[in-house]
Amino acid sequence: MKIVIMGGGPGGYVAAIRAAQLGAEVTIIEKEHFGGTCLNKGCIPTKVLLHTTEQLEMIKKDYNEMGIRVSDIGVDWRRLQERKEKIVGRLVRGVEGLLSNNKIVKIEGEGSFVNKNKISVKMKDGTKTSADFDYAIIATGSKPVIIPLPGVNLPGVITSDEALSLSKVPKSMVIIGGGVIGAEFAAVYNALGCKVIIVEMLDNIVANMDKDIVQPLKDKFIKNGVEIHTGTKVVSISESNEGLSVNTVSYQGEASFIGEKVLLSIGRKPATDSMGLENLNVKTERGAIVVNKNMRTDTDNIYAIGDCTGGVMLAHAASAEGIVAAESIIGKKPQIDFRTIPYCVYTKPELAGVGLTEEQAKTKGYEIKTGMFPMYINGKAIIEGETDGIVKYIADAQTGEILGFHMAGPRATDLIVEGSLAIRLEATVDEITSTIHAHPTIGEALQEAAHAVHGNAIHIPR
Amino acid sequence: MKIVIMGGGPGGYVAAIRAAQLGAEVTIIEKEHFGGTCLNKGCIPTKVLLHTTEQLEMIKKDYNEMGIRVSDIGVDWRRLQERKEKIVGRLVRGVEGLLSNNKIVKIEGEGSFVNKNKISVKMKDGTKTSADFDYAIIATGSKPVIIPLPGVNLPGVITSDEALSLSKVPKSMVIIGGGVIGAEFAAVYNALGCKVIIVEMLDNIVANMDKDIVQPLKDKFIKNGVEIHTGTKVVSISESNEGLSVNTVSYQGEASFIGEKVLLSIGRKPATDSMGLENLNVKTERGAIVVNKNMRTDTDNIYAIGDCTGGVMLAHAASAEGIVAAESIIGKKPQIDFRTIPYCVYTKPELAGVGLTEEQAKTKGYEIKTGMFPMYINGKAIIEGETDGIVKYIADAQTGEILGFHMAGPRATDLIVEGSLAIRLEATVDEITSTIHAHPTIGEALQEAAHAVHGNAIHIPR
Repeated sequence: MKIVIMGGGPGGYVAAIRAAQLGAEVTIIEKEHFGGTCLNKGCIPTKVLLHTTEQLEMIKKDYNEMGIRVSDIGVDWRRLQERKEKIVGRLVRGVEGLLSNNKIVKIEGEGSFVNKNKISVKMKDGTKTSADFDYAIIATGSKPVIIPLPGVNLPGVITSDEALSLSKVPKSMVIIGGGVIGAEFAAVYNALGCKVIIVEMLDNIVANMDKDIVQPLKDKFIKNGVEIHTGTKVVSISESNEGLSVNTVSYQGEASFIGEKVLLSIGRKPATDSMGLENLNVKTERGAIVVNKNMRTDTDNIYAIGDCTGGVMLAHAASAEGIVAAESIIGKKPQIDFRTIPYCVYTKPELAGVGLTEEQAKTKGYEIKTGMFPMYINGKAIIEGETDGIVKYIADAQTGEILGFHMAGPRATDLIVEGSLAIRLEATVDEITSTIHAHPTIGEALQEAAHAVHGNAIHIPR
Repeated sequence: MKIVIMGGGPGGYVAAIRAAQLGAEVTIIEKEHFGGTCLNKGCIPTKVLLHTTEQLEMIKKDYNEMGIRVSDIGVDWRRLQERKEKIVGRLVRGVEGLLSNNKIVKIEGEGSFVNKNKISVKMKDGTKTSADFDYAIIATGSKPVIIPLPGVNLPGVITSDEALSLSKVPKSMVIIGGGVIGAEFAAVYNALGCKVIIVEMLDNIVANMDKDIVQPLKDKFIKNGVEIHTGTKVVSISESNEGLSVNTVSYQGEASFIGEKVLLSIGRKPATDSMGLENLNVKTERGAIVVNKNMRTDTDNIYAIGDCTGGVMLAHAASAEGIVAAESIIGKKPQIDFRTIPYCVYTKPELAGVGLTEEQAKTKGYEIKTGMFPMYINGKAIIEGETDGIVKYIADAQTGEILGFHMAGPRATDLIVEGSLAIRLEATVDEITSTIHAHPTIGEALQEAAHAVHGNAIHIPR
């Protein structure tokens, strides 16, 4: 069985490997770099910048008290950029190596569907080739949304792509859009000494996450001098003597915010143009390819996964969908449980959530109980000097089943595994409290938050 | 109902709070400091030292490459000691506050049972008092084992108690006993520039944990210049011109190891003497109080929990036992699952394990499959510069049920929550692989190790 995969990001390359594991003859087409946005311009490079800037912040804030003597603290921006490139390169080569090792044919070029069994490819070197297939998986990802705003093309207005590789740290930056990407860049540039202003149209930053875990991040941002303007709509960008002026309206009236750079991080949209979709009988909605739960499109042998199908637009969701598509094609029943998708923000405190937020649970009509435990009571958090944050369980009031798990605090993006597994196994609060959590760990806060659902946390005063 | 609790450590104070939550009239007797060994001389102060020394190691090793400029790196030992005392003080006051808040009567003194319903207490100020009770919970903990070795009383031979608070960092240290405590102190003093030699009688350090996860720690120790001598029995300690001489025998013959200090960390034993046990009809075995699964002794109204009952001697096990004892006394059916006890070592890499080791599973006659994933392939581990380590699942070959989970690597002591919850819920490997793990996180390595049980890890070359 011949499978062609269009796009070599975390959806496509994982689908390719899984299909190869299951015995298919696989070809993968990538027009830029294997690893896709995630590895080259998204998850990985941002985390490299965040890791260093978090360390930098910790040295400045805590090292003296922690008994470490250092002097002349500063960032070596060029070195950090080099490290970022080096790590991205290492991981891209890793993906390429895995593809080869699984005997997957790699084609570097731009594919376009000729019909439902043939794709033509314009190679990077200008030549053309084509490939026949029994099945295709479209995994072309997404691209930043650029709104048609007056001034959006002015020099100094950038997207996340450029924000990763600025030649130097700007003095000031206005970030339009306080979602995950905006929040992470705010953390990076704030720690580097850049004055950061976030302008967000919605009534909260990182509005898709539970409000109680976003609050500690907002508090931290404000404490560190980041300006946050929510409920504020950008109407234009213009040049001024002091830099770029982001002109806004809100219930408080009109206001302008000045920055040397303006980062547009208002979201991403499916990348589905110029690949011959019109030659396939594939339904799209507002640019996103429509698929069923097995990731199959309206055309029997064409599947689509990841950001190009709209939806949650997260690398790990794309990988999971890739496995589902590959297994469905081969005739293996996929088991992945999409209720377990974690949402993470790699700021400090880290944020992570899975399942329903309190608001979502109420909207869906659940009668719920919640349990919260603040990080500043946790011994290990005190030792690590990271006491900002909270753990929150949302449970069905009748059955105790865990509907949502949300956390702000150290190691949250890893500790989220407990929440995801709990939802996967339809665990109850009592099954969490009866599981022994190691002392002294941040993980203890998870057990205490579960106890708190019954008002029984040991370390919360009554 | 009147309950007296003897000992205010992590077993006793948690039992006290749980009993108070359930409506009992509780008195707690503590002869030294609330929080017990764990908080005052164990878990907490060691982790304070480990946190700073790990940061120190990271600055020296990684900061240059990570793009952070610092100079004149050094440790401020006095400041670190102050921080340790400050954190211990804060947490002890926290425990005292919680006890008051739960209306628990605190008596600071040395208790001794008069009969099965009365205890007399010699108060710290020399006066005497007594308390009547319906039920008692003994939670007197443990103390370091001192072997009757020639030279064991020489000045410079210390236990973990003194190793926490040395007035200065010694030039060299021989650690007798390479268990958890020995390994953690080896990590601390090695990072501080002290020459460390570990002498261990068994054939491995941290011998209670799965060999595959101990190996990365051994490799790291050796790379950092720690000498490890396993299968080596100490016969005496003597004075020499260069310092203390630890004289040993092994299959390789006799050898002596020289250190400015000698740390005895060969284990702990139940602290059950001089508290009037002879006035109770309570059975002991080699100094440990014998209890049933509800933590009840042979005497109906006397319970015992934690280190004084022997067993695993971990703070979180003691706390769990405290909850079981309190709930059993009040007549509530305890639900805690003791198969979920995690074992942690807070070195770098961190080690954590739960359930059966490979060796234990084989000894018990299980037919098993294992899945492993090395940390150096994990993207987040690369970003954090912490690529030492491995994740290992042990599953029943027939059913796929997870029997053990073991990990060496960053955040292992927190990520162990996935293993404990999996064992609590009798999860299978497929239930782990079908749970979505966030990208990029260390947690992804857990999903990959589960895939590896079936030979299906995406990121392992075939």
